[in-house]
Amino acid sequence: MATRKMILDLDTGIDDAMAIAYAVAAPDVDLIGIVASYGNVLTPLAAQNSLKILELLGRLDVPVFLGELHASTTDHFDVMPISAQIHGKNGIGEVALPTPKRQVEAKSGVDFLIEAAHQYRQDLIVVPTGPLTNLAKAIKIAPEIQDEIGQVTLMGGALTVPGNVSPVAEANINQDPVAADQVFESRLNLTMVGLDVTLRTLLTKKETQQWRELDTVAGNKFADIVDYYIDVYKITSPHLHGCALHDPLAVGVTLDPSLVSTLNLNMFVDTTKAMWGRTIGDPARLTEEAPNVSVALTVDQEKYLARFMQYLTTLFKQN
Amino acid sequence: MATRKMILDLDTGIDDAMAIAYAVAAPDVDLIGIVASYGNVLTPLAAQNSLKILELLGRLDVPVFLGELHASTTDHFDVMPISAQIHGKNGIGEVALPTPKRQVEAKSGVDFLIEAAHQYRQDLIVVPTGPLTNLAKAIKIAPEIQDEIGQVTLMGGALTVPGNVSPVAEANINQDPVAADQVFESRLNLTMVGLDVTLRTLLTKKETQQWRELDTVAGNKFADIVDYYIDVYKITSPHLHGCALHDPLAVGVTLDPSLVSTLNLNMFVDTTKAMWGRTIGDPARLTEEAPNVSVALTVDQEKYLARFMQYLTTLFKQN
Repeated sequence: MATRKMILDLDTGIDDAMAIAYAVAAPDVDLIGIVASYGNVLTPLAAQNSLKILELLGRLDVPVFLGELHASTTDHFDVMPISAQIHGKNGIGEVALPTPKRQVEAKSGVDFLIEAAHQYRQDLIVVPTGPLTNLAKAIKIAPEIQDEIGQVTLMGGALTVPGNVSPVAEANINQDPVAADQVFESRLNLTMVGLDVTLRTLLTKKETQQWRELDTVAGNKFADIVDYYIDVYKITSPHLHGCALHDPLAVGVTLDPSLVSTLNLNMFVDTTKAMWGRTIGDPARLTEEAPNVSVALTVDQEKYLARFMQYLTTLFKQN
Repeated sequence: MATRKMILDLDTGIDDAMAIAYAVAAPDVDLIGIVASYGNVLTPLAAQNSLKILELLGRLDVPVFLGELHASTTDHFDVMPISAQIHGKNGIGEVALPTPKRQVEAKSGVDFLIEAAHQYRQDLIVVPTGPLTNLAKAIKIAPEIQDEIGQVTLMGGALTVPGNVSPVAEANINQDPVAADQVFESRLNLTMVGLDVTLRTLLTKKETQQWRELDTVAGNKFADIVDYYIDVYKITSPHLHGCALHDPLAVGVTLDPSLVSTLNLNMFVDTTKAMWGRTIGDPARLTEEAPNVSVALTVDQEKYLARFMQYLTTLFKQN
């Protein structure tokens, strides 16, 4: 098998930063680019943060592209106060990192997605961990990529647990439910890594302390960034006793689906006012063959956490 | 193993009638009693319908008890117009059956549940296919039965699909979410057979025609009753192309859990106004050991339907 190619579509974000580290550290995939999205921060800041994190990890070869600035149904985006609280105003826990040496690419993130799909086809994995606006726009412009892209594994949604911005909506889906529904009802080979499993996969300061003890720049900076996130979780979600590894879990699952148990289900995203952003099965298509979404329901969190720590600790040791 | 004892808690109802037939026909269980509930019809009518169906099936030995008349949080119950439409005003598709020879028992349904739990303990299976008001009252009066009853398999709720009386609520749970939450958060060994699987398990007139061709009283009456239900489904749920085997599927699953795939999940029933009656995972208890509910997610509908038809056709041939 050719080495698989991965594109991350990130609103970087603390757990997005961990997703970058996981993708860089994983031995079985080539990270070929990062598309920036709005969400935890504004799109330009997400791009800057991705450049900073890549530089911190010694990966000056991975290009970063600007994605859409707001939802497909709006003309503007403001960061929600809760996002700024969770990730810090600068998106990376108010930790200072050097101004990146590199710039974002001139090509748009949507064009990059389309061209990569044409080039790598079934070897391409796309991992969106923010709104699905960029991917929805790409399949609208170039519908054929639905059949080309090998796998889309998104962090978003909630099927068996309540949402985190409303009783039914998870934050990423909530940003642009119309785009999300276009992706959910597309022909893409889709895996949903939602709150169902990411709230089961927790990191504590016991782990970040191990990074700190490496006494490297990357180890110290990542420990500072993630400790900020853990401290906020103590306030916003004290029952969890740790921070959720939302975005890096999606990267882990796409590389090793055996980490999760899944349900194959024909799903849609509800865009009615009362159920805005709900990801749910379509009762009219329950008995249809070949459901379009594989939803992660449970996770071997010990196995995942061990791998996460092995990957990131090895990476931070070298940087 | 001692033969298991089953109590049905029914708001009889057309699919409840099929649940009685399935329990009577199943070779591996003793139906020891039916508790009547409000829901599809008023409680006294549910009791009368159960007596009529038992008599039609030649089972004059199974006692019928009156359960609660309304939800634990109200003082009154009116049948919803949609229930009267689906089951007919008489609950059994406007089909006439003889006035039963027997009366309901003097003992209350709740007392019967408690006494049977004390007597049969782990050999007892309780299958509620209506509101959970009776069971909640029983565990309030006699909390020890939570640890005595071997298995509770309920028809109700919806986890991976929308509800059928609101976007989040299934009809049985919707009748008394407070009682349902007491059952869901109890120590009972609970299996939820909800819309997730019952909407995948459909019966058509091709099957009822086989009953008709038996040319027995039971075969003809059941064909008439169920055809009424199938005709209503053509109007209310044309996308299904059949009627859902809600209640008899719960009986089938409790006797043979291998018919379904399940998710073990700590659940609760939401009793807030916006999410009234939603059955959903508890995000604060996702990583706790030994989740309290086993939720059916997929079903081998061909295997179940074959067994359903084998059981019911054999039974109707003799009656």
